[in-house]
Amino acid sequence: MRTFDSVSNIRAFVRASVQDGKSIALVPTMGALHEGHMSLMRRARADCDLVIASIFVNPSQFGANEDFDRYPRDLARDSKLAQQAGVDALFTPSVKVIYPEGDRTTVQVGKIAERWEGELRPGHFEGVATVCAKLFQIVNPDRVYFGLKDYQQLKVIEQMSADLFFAHTIVPVATVREPDGLAMSSRNVYLSEEERQSATAVSRALALASQQFDEGERNAPKLQEVINCTLQADPAVTIQYTSIADADTLEPLETVKTKAVALIAVKVGTTRLIDNAVLGGPPSRRGENDRSKG
Amino acid sequence: MRTFDSVSNIRAFVRASVQDGKSIALVPTMGALHEGHMSLMRRARADCDLVIASIFVNPSQFGANEDFDRYPRDLARDSKLAQQAGVDALFTPSVKVIYPEGDRTTVQVGKIAERWEGELRPGHFEGVATVCAKLFQIVNPDRVYFGLKDYQQLKVIEQMSADLFFAHTIVPVATVREPDGLAMSSRNVYLSEEERQSATAVSRALALASQQFDEGERNAPKLQEVINCTLQADPAVTIQYTSIADADTLEPLETVKTKAVALIAVKVGTTRLIDNAVLGGPPSRRGENDRSKG
Repeated sequence: MRTFDSVSNIRAFVRASVQDGKSIALVPTMGALHEGHMSLMRRARADCDLVIASIFVNPSQFGANEDFDRYPRDLARDSKLAQQAGVDALFTPSVKVIYPEGDRTTVQVGKIAERWEGELRPGHFEGVATVCAKLFQIVNPDRVYFGLKDYQQLKVIEQMSADLFFAHTIVPVATVREPDGLAMSSRNVYLSEEERQSATAVSRALALASQQFDEGERNAPKLQEVINCTLQADPAVTIQYTSIADADTLEPLETVKTKAVALIAVKVGTTRLIDNAVLGGPPSRRGENDRSKG
Repeated sequence: MRTFDSVSNIRAFVRASVQDGKSIALVPTMGALHEGHMSLMRRARADCDLVIASIFVNPSQFGANEDFDRYPRDLARDSKLAQQAGVDALFTPSVKVIYPEGDRTTVQVGKIAERWEGELRPGHFEGVATVCAKLFQIVNPDRVYFGLKDYQQLKVIEQMSADLFFAHTIVPVATVREPDGLAMSSRNVYLSEEERQSATAVSRALALASQQFDEGERNAPKLQEVINCTLQADPAVTIQYTSIADADTLEPLETVKTKAVALIAVKVGTTRLIDNAVLGGPPSRRGENDRSKG
């Protein structure tokens, strides 16, 4: 596995493969890799000829009071894991490489970025959209892999990619969970043993709502109430938001007619956790110009 | 000359040429072509194997009280002129093709877009940057041609292209002028015969400032005073702004040390005119990945 930290080197590496007719996958990450990332990488490996994973802890998507400084970083460990998952090249740029002139040009994705995470984390999705636009331009992939765990992020990037006519296909990949249901997240390491127990309320709440949906419940407030009751049963869990929202626009619903998503954001102690469950169908895909294998 | 109005068709056309190893030029225009545009197209023709010109009157860069509705449109005439200038293909998308979901994702270029035109035309450069990002993604050119007449626009697009890692080179092309000095502009048709006379004050003012600069004047307020006096001598001319600014950042200067630009915006009757003169050297270029001939 190769590692590149300059734009010109990763570009030259990708270009040589494109000239050989190879399809290019990009898995953008902030490092601190876990089974969720590995699953994205394995899926990319199965789909495409060349798999690039980026590791970049993007300062512009962290709020002033968030965990940019203490976000876990371990490149040696991440490199091993990426190699095991079949990654061909890591792109590990510095902040100076991605923002040589500081924050200057930004990408704003509009309404879908304003709700939920966007409301609680002002500037977050602007940072995410901007860094993704940069990474997409640098790598010019055929397919880009995002986890469904960060559902709103996936939808923001899908919209941005469509609106700016990026030619890649976005591939959403199912959330990987611990045996007890907790969604894998690099931030789970922040949880104490007791908090780790309380955190299971989130996936239990989603499982209950999914079950009621499967049994025919289509009333959104009732589905939300199931979620809220489950979360509120544990005093260590503080709800930030819950919603039964349209799966594409993320607007809150009264009745689930086609496809919806149950969204949860909580705090357990000082750690924020988000999770979701899609109700009523697999997530949509988009894209064209696909040079990928499958 | 071919004409395309869909994204997939222009992309397929460009892709076939890239696969043949051809270099791609893009000349983005709003139509109403004049000698200024022709000069961009001829330069593109000399530089590259395949020349694409886009004609798109972009609604998002016009203010609510501006001339979007009456902006001159004549595709038949524009087609003839583009063909004469050696254009291989016109891209003439509808608003629905470029904004299928309306205004959603936007690109903001930061500080350089806030002054001068940005201040007088709120949202203008956001519209310009967004539509250029879309056109660049669609055509994926090696070189993009912009006139120096819209100097701040050129600088905004240069910064956007650098910040978002577009691989193309931006090629600035000298302003083409009428025999009496008036900079060519699609909006010159709005001028009455009398206004057309008054409009020559703008290029006269710039010529005087350039002359004084060439003779050694480096004091910015003195250079600006030369400009203001010339403009104010004609009561039909109303100054919107004038400035001696840094040629890259567009920040106003006290003393011209390296490269500066004299900027003018006036109203003659109800018609806005802008013009500029670079003081102290040719404009900068940027880019990489150049597949162009020269």
